Amino acid sequence: MKREDCEALDRADKLATVRDRFDLPDGVIYLDGNSLGPLPYSVTKRLKEVVEGEWGIDLIRSWNHNDWINLPFVTGEKIAKLIGAAPGQVICTDSTSINLFKLLVTGLGLNAPKTVLLSSHTNFPTDLYMAQGLGGLLGDGRCQLRLVSDSEIESALTDDVAVLFLTHVDFRSGNLHNMQHLTNLAHEQGALVLWDLSHSVGAVPINLDEWQVDLAVGCGYKFLNGGPGAPAFLYVATRHLPQATQPLSGWMGHADPFAFAPEYRPASGIASFASGTPGILGMAALDVALGQWHDINVADVRAKSLSLCRLFYQLVSQEPMLEALCPVGTTLLDQRGSQVCFSHPDAYAIVQALVARQVIGDFRAPDIMRFGIAPLYVRHVDVFDAVRHLCEVVSSEEFKAPAFQNKTAVT
Amino acid sequence: MKREDCEALDRADKLATVRDRFDLPDGVIYLDGNSLGPLPYSVTKRLKEVVEGEWGIDLIRSWNHNDWINLPFVTGEKIAKLIGAAPGQVICTDSTSINLFKLLVTGLGLNAPKTVLLSSHTNFPTDLYMAQGLGGLLGDGRCQLRLVSDSEIESALTDDVAVLFLTHVDFRSGNLHNMQHLTNLAHEQGALVLWDLSHSVGAVPINLDEWQVDLAVGCGYKFLNGGPGAPAFLYVATRHLPQATQPLSGWMGHADPFAFAPEYRPASGIASFASGTPGILGMAALDVALGQWHDINVADVRAKSLSLCRLFYQLVSQEPMLEALCPVGTTLLDQRGSQVCFSHPDAYAIVQALVARQVIGDFRAPDIMRFGIAPLYVRHVDVFDAVRHLCEVVSSEEFKAPAFQNKTAVT
Repeated sequence: MKREDCEALDRADKLATVRDRFDLPDGVIYLDGNSLGPLPYSVTKRLKEVVEGEWGIDLIRSWNHNDWINLPFVTGEKIAKLIGAAPGQVICTDSTSINLFKLLVTGLGLNAPKTVLLSSHTNFPTDLYMAQGLGGLLGDGRCQLRLVSDSEIESALTDDVAVLFLTHVDFRSGNLHNMQHLTNLAHEQGALVLWDLSHSVGAVPINLDEWQVDLAVGCGYKFLNGGPGAPAFLYVATRHLPQATQPLSGWMGHADPFAFAPEYRPASGIASFASGTPGILGMAALDVALGQWHDINVADVRAKSLSLCRLFYQLVSQEPMLEALCPVGTTLLDQRGSQVCFSHPDAYAIVQALVARQVIGDFRAPDIMRFGIAPLYVRHVDVFDAVRHLCEVVSSEEFKAPAFQNKTAVT
Repeated sequence: MKREDCEALDRADKLATVRDRFDLPDGVIYLDGNSLGPLPYSVTKRLKEVVEGEWGIDLIRSWNHNDWINLPFVTGEKIAKLIGAAPGQVICTDSTSINLFKLLVTGLGLNAPKTVLLSSHTNFPTDLYMAQGLGGLLGDGRCQLRLVSDSEIESALTDDVAVLFLTHVDFRSGNLHNMQHLTNLAHEQGALVLWDLSHSVGAVPINLDEWQVDLAVGCGYKFLNGGPGAPAFLYVATRHLPQATQPLSGWMGHADPFAFAPEYRPASGIASFASGTPGILGMAALDVALGQWHDINVADVRAKSLSLCRLFYQLVSQEPMLEALCPVGTTLLDQRGSQVCFSHPDAYAIVQALVARQVIGDFRAPDIMRFGIAPLYVRHVDVFDAVRHLCEVVSSEEFKAPAFQNKTAVT
């Protein structure tokens, strides 16, 4: 595989022009869109309107005139289209962590008197931490957290499980859970499922309705390109909405918030999953970033992702200089999300040396280098060039420079 | 009192030049800064940097290079200076509703085995709704909500109360609770206090440390001018931090979030009150809006607020055309926050007619017109002109036009 072959693949790429929608810095190969998606030009333009026009000129009237009040639903419906959810089931609100807390309680309520929350030790830590916080609050009698390894999930899924909660794509390994299969298994045992889509939405096909998923959450700042700390979303299947309750019952979830009644009366449907006042600046950015998907098919995104990931593994495996890199997670591409991961004893320093060469991936403890593959703007030539840089960093041993050893990075 | 007298007062105003820091639309008299503060020019400039420079160019590296990771603390300390809190007690995070939930649980934990949460029926509804959500989750045996009228608070503050939670300034009436007095009374009964500062921070002097307040929350989008749905803050007194826990234990509250350990281990101090990933766009806007306070003394703000409120009441009371307006709440200015409120059977339509004249106040059900007095940009001539418009709207009966009767506004 030569660079010209990659150029040919890029010329044939259906999504080739989508890259032009992003304000990518010159010379950077950005392989960290699974951590923070880059800036769409449309966001720059829209935020100027929201700040200077809607906030600056229309002021408080924007809640009505510019429909800020409905932005959590409008944005939620744009996400719904990417996750196979019919209207009325998704709201954009709060953070993934907060939304997970809400829906764990919802799941326990829907599936009472069962008390077990089942997950994997390798689930994204904030999901585990929120479940631990809930368990501490409710006590063992009402909430028990059962953590197992990924390989033990099926055997641990017994009929005492109230909610199985997992992240669709493992943040470290990139492994993709079989959502449909695990959802079916859970239902056979009388458990509900709560999927965290943070590392898959916008990169992997998801069909929540078709797969009979019960509950889901996800974030807006990775493959959705909504900006740093963009608001998150949650999904509750229509069939559960009439019985579903959540404890973070703020005024935005009230049936009539501007009546200012002292008694909480939940809004009907997904609206009752709102809590406090939505952050409009962050949500407007995410909303317009989602607008880019109007002409993009997730199946095409997945096909390009598989092509890019295949190329990455192929180039690494063909390169004798890189034999010390050990693939993390499965190498069966259809069982992976949209990231490529390798372990190496010097992973941290190698990632730093790559960043110094403008090839941006990231490191995950203890020894993993992660490269996110975001098909909306990553090209085959980018993968080719990234692997070439990787070879040079490893073969030259430039990663051994003291500047690359110092673990000060926090993300 | 003539307009020239107001002009003279404005010429003598210490804070006169602060108005120039705001991008106020021409011709608007903005008396709704207690609902949404206007746009500071510094925010427009800073957001452009954050979006195009930090997100656009530095991308994921900004969490370190541009210190996004510490923004909740940096912003929190700027708020701390406005509420009389020494460093290490305030974090900017989530919404007021979510933070209130955290701190109600914190208070119950610190004051176990007491279970009663005491508040007023007239507290801001989201505070009551969150307490109701918590009560529903924990059950009567662990959390009982006791709601009384404002006048009954002292008698209801018995020794079974775990936490007294109130909003410092009543959103409807503008009445100001005596925080110091009620905090002392609560402590005498062995109760903790949790104050919601949303309607007072940036307008009324607050000395949390000096008054021995235990817990507090507040929002960033009113008198702090942080933008629509700006992130909120919370305060936990240093003396409580070693024992204080909260249940929404997300990864940003972990002692070492980037170790990605499966077990939650809280950060020491106020950091453990963080939950999910902070929304950087909204927080950066609030942070720079708070920068304006570097040369502003809250005592001067209060003095100007009292002068403006006094003028408003005086002008209304002198005007026979306005005799149907009935002041809501106390008229003792030192027992009021920074808003002026009147009831009138046609309050809704009058507010709409004023808005059509570019005098922006707001309506609160069932019959209250509210005028927020934000001394950073409201002038004595604005109050004079607003009352003149009010007279014209009432005397001409223009508020009776059908366009002003239709209750579609939601804020």
